[in-house]
Amino acid sequence: MLTPNRNFSRIQKNYLFVNVEKKIESYRARHPEKKIISLGIGDVTLPLGEVVIDAFHRAVEMQAHKETFRGYQDESGIRTFRSVIAGDYASRGIPMKEEDVFISSGAADDLGNILLLFDDDISALVMTPAYPAYVDANLMDGREIIYIEANERNGFLPFPEADTEGDIIYLCSPNNPTGAAYDRNGLRRWVEHANNNGSIIIFDAAYEAYITDPDIPHSIYEIEGARDCAIEIRSFSKSAGFTGMRLGYTVIPHELARGGFHLNSMYARARSTRSNGVSLILQEAGKALYTLEGQEYIRSSVSYYKENGRIMMETLDVFGFDYVGGRNAPYIWLKCPKGFESWEFFDLMLEKLQIVGTPGVGFGPNGEGYFRLSTFGDHEDVKEAMARMRAFF
Amino acid sequence: MLTPNRNFSRIQKNYLFVNVEKKIESYRARHPEKKIISLGIGDVTLPLGEVVIDAFHRAVEMQAHKETFRGYQDESGIRTFRSVIAGDYASRGIPMKEEDVFISSGAADDLGNILLLFDDDISALVMTPAYPAYVDANLMDGREIIYIEANERNGFLPFPEADTEGDIIYLCSPNNPTGAAYDRNGLRRWVEHANNNGSIIIFDAAYEAYITDPDIPHSIYEIEGARDCAIEIRSFSKSAGFTGMRLGYTVIPHELARGGFHLNSMYARARSTRSNGVSLILQEAGKALYTLEGQEYIRSSVSYYKENGRIMMETLDVFGFDYVGGRNAPYIWLKCPKGFESWEFFDLMLEKLQIVGTPGVGFGPNGEGYFRLSTFGDHEDVKEAMARMRAFF
Repeated sequence: MLTPNRNFSRIQKNYLFVNVEKKIESYRARHPEKKIISLGIGDVTLPLGEVVIDAFHRAVEMQAHKETFRGYQDESGIRTFRSVIAGDYASRGIPMKEEDVFISSGAADDLGNILLLFDDDISALVMTPAYPAYVDANLMDGREIIYIEANERNGFLPFPEADTEGDIIYLCSPNNPTGAAYDRNGLRRWVEHANNNGSIIIFDAAYEAYITDPDIPHSIYEIEGARDCAIEIRSFSKSAGFTGMRLGYTVIPHELARGGFHLNSMYARARSTRSNGVSLILQEAGKALYTLEGQEYIRSSVSYYKENGRIMMETLDVFGFDYVGGRNAPYIWLKCPKGFESWEFFDLMLEKLQIVGTPGVGFGPNGEGYFRLSTFGDHEDVKEAMARMRAFF
Repeated sequence: MLTPNRNFSRIQKNYLFVNVEKKIESYRARHPEKKIISLGIGDVTLPLGEVVIDAFHRAVEMQAHKETFRGYQDESGIRTFRSVIAGDYASRGIPMKEEDVFISSGAADDLGNILLLFDDDISALVMTPAYPAYVDANLMDGREIIYIEANERNGFLPFPEADTEGDIIYLCSPNNPTGAAYDRNGLRRWVEHANNNGSIIIFDAAYEAYITDPDIPHSIYEIEGARDCAIEIRSFSKSAGFTGMRLGYTVIPHELARGGFHLNSMYARARSTRSNGVSLILQEAGKALYTLEGQEYIRSSVSYYKENGRIMMETLDVFGFDYVGGRNAPYIWLKCPKGFESWEFFDLMLEKLQIVGTPGVGFGPNGEGYFRLSTFGDHEDVKEAMARMRAFF
C-alpha cells in the first residue's frame, strides 16, 4: 500500500480569506444598499499598460506564423529575457550572469520549487507574522519551523542572535504583511549571520518596486557576502500588475554552494526535469518591461498605488493610529485601536464603515491585535474609505 | 551548516540531446552544403491555428481594460475552464467533477508537482525505455526506482506479475519513446494490479490525440476501478501545438485516497500553497480548444503529423524494417537494422542520409539497438527523408 505524504497532516487549514468572504456576504445580505470598500486583498486593480499589451499581442502573433513559431524553450528561461534581467542587475552595480537568473511563473511557484534543493531534515526560520506559504511549504516537506518574532518592540524587523537557529532563513523585505523594510545595516546583519552559520537566506523581494527610502536595498545582493548565502525571489505581480499573468524570476548566484553541491546547477537540473519552462509569450511580454516605456509603465502603476498609501497614512496620522509600512511597501500594518483584537476590529470596520481589511491574526498568532490595509485599491474608493474613517474616529 | 538535497548526486547527467547537437554541428562544419532533416526532436512545427490565436488576442485585450481586468485566480484553475474539461470527459461517458481537474503548466510540470503527494520512502515502477524525467524526478525525492522491461518480446507493453512491486506506477500510453499503446484489456490488468496492491498509477496521456485504433483507451478512466488508483496527466502540447505555450491538466478523482488521505484535497492544498496558478490568458485560450472550431483545429494538426507517420511507415514497410508505434502515436520506434547499436545507426543516418533521429539508448539501456523517429516534421521534409532512405537501403 502506497504511503501518502503524511506531512500534510501538519498543515492547518487556513480559513482567513474564507472567513473574510463569509462575513462580507453576511453583511451584504443584511445591507444590500451599502457600498463595501475592500482594502483587504493584496491584488492589483489597474489594467495592464499599452507597452505590455502590445508586447503580448506581438508575441501571440509570432506563434501564428510558421516562420516565427517557436516550441520548447530552455526550461530555465529564454536567453534574451534572462540576459536583460542580468543586465538590469549590472546597471545597479550588481554583477550577474544570465545563468544566475531563472524565469519563473511567479514568486509563489518558485518559493515552493526551490525547496527541492534542500534536505527535508533541516529547519526553516520564519518570522511571525508572515506570508503563510513559507511555513506550509516547509511543513509539507517535513522540515522543522523555527519562529522569530516581529513585533512592536523590534519595529517588526527582528535580528538574529548568535545562537539563532534555522538552516533556511526567510526574509521578506519590504514585508508582507507588515510593510516594514530592512535597511542596509539590517540586511548586513542577516547576511553575516547566514554566512557564519552556513544558512541560506530566501529573500522575497516581491515588493521592492515600492521602496521609497534610499537606504532600503532593492536586492539582497547589494550586501557584500550575499552571493554566498542568498537566493532572491522576484515577481512582476505587484510591479507590473501580473498577478493574473504569472511571471517572475529567481536568482541563484553561481557561487552559492553547500556541502559540495552547487545550488545553481542543481536548480537548472531540477527545472529541466520537472518543468518545460514558462510560456514563451509571458517571457516575451516580460522583456517589454525592461524597455524605457516598460520601466515608465511600472513607475506609473506603482506611483498610483503609492498615492493610495499616502492618502491612507495622512488619515491615520491625523488620528494618531499606530502603524508601520506604507512608505516602502503596498501594505499598512495597523495596530487595532483601544486593544481591539484583529477580528473585533474587522467586524467594527465592516459593520460601521463598510471597509474591509485583513485581520492580522491570519498571518500567525503574533499578528493578533493588528489589521492589514492594502493600497491596491482605486483612488476614489480609498478617498471615500478615509472620509468614512475621519467621520467615525 | 544547511544540508542540500543530496539525492541530486543519484541523478546521472543526460547528454543525449547535447551529444546529438554536437554530432550535427560537427557534420555541418564538414558539409555546410548538405541539408540535414531532423526527425529527432519531439517538438511540434505547425504554427497555432486561428481559433487559438484569436482567443489569445481576446484574452490579452481583456487585461487592457479596467472593466475586464482580472488578477489572482483559483490556484487549481479557473472554474469555467475546469468545467469545460470535466464536461469533455462526461461527453465520453466518464463522469468527472470540475474539482477533479487541475489546470497545469503542462505535463512536465505536473509530473513533478504531484510527487509532493507521496512519501519519499516508497518506490516507483518505471518502464525501460522511458521518458527520463519519470526516473530523475523520483530520484531527486529519494525514492527507489524499480524497472520493468518493455522489449520486443512483450511488444514494448509489459504487464505486471502478481509480485511486481512499485508503489507509484508510471504508464505512458501511447508511449514515448516506443509509440506502443495499451488496449482496454492491457490497461485493465494494470488497474487491477494497482488496486490489489494499493499502488497509484500515474497515467501520462500526453499523446492520446494520436490514437487511431478504437480499442485503445484515450483515458485510463475508461477502465473500471481506475478512479480508485489513477492520476491522469494531460497536455495540450502535442494536440494543439502548445509546446512553447505551456498548458495542460491533471485529473485526480475525488475518490482517490490512501492511508486516510484524499489526494484530490491534498493537491488542492499543495497548489494553493506552492503556486498562484496558470496564466489567465493561457487558460482563456485553452477554453477555445473545446469549441467546435477548436476541436477541428486539433483534428487537423494531428492529422498533419499522422500523415507524416503514414508516409514514414510506408517506406519502412517496403524495406521490411522492424518497428512499433506510428499508428497511435507520433513516434516510430525502429529496430536498428543489421544489429547496429543506437549511436552507430545515428551516425550512419546522419553521415550517409543527413537524417537526424534519436538514439534509443538515450531512453535507458533497454533502448540500445533502437532509434526513435518523430512525426512532427514538415511534410516535404519527411517525404525527402523517406526518398533518401529508399535510395540508400
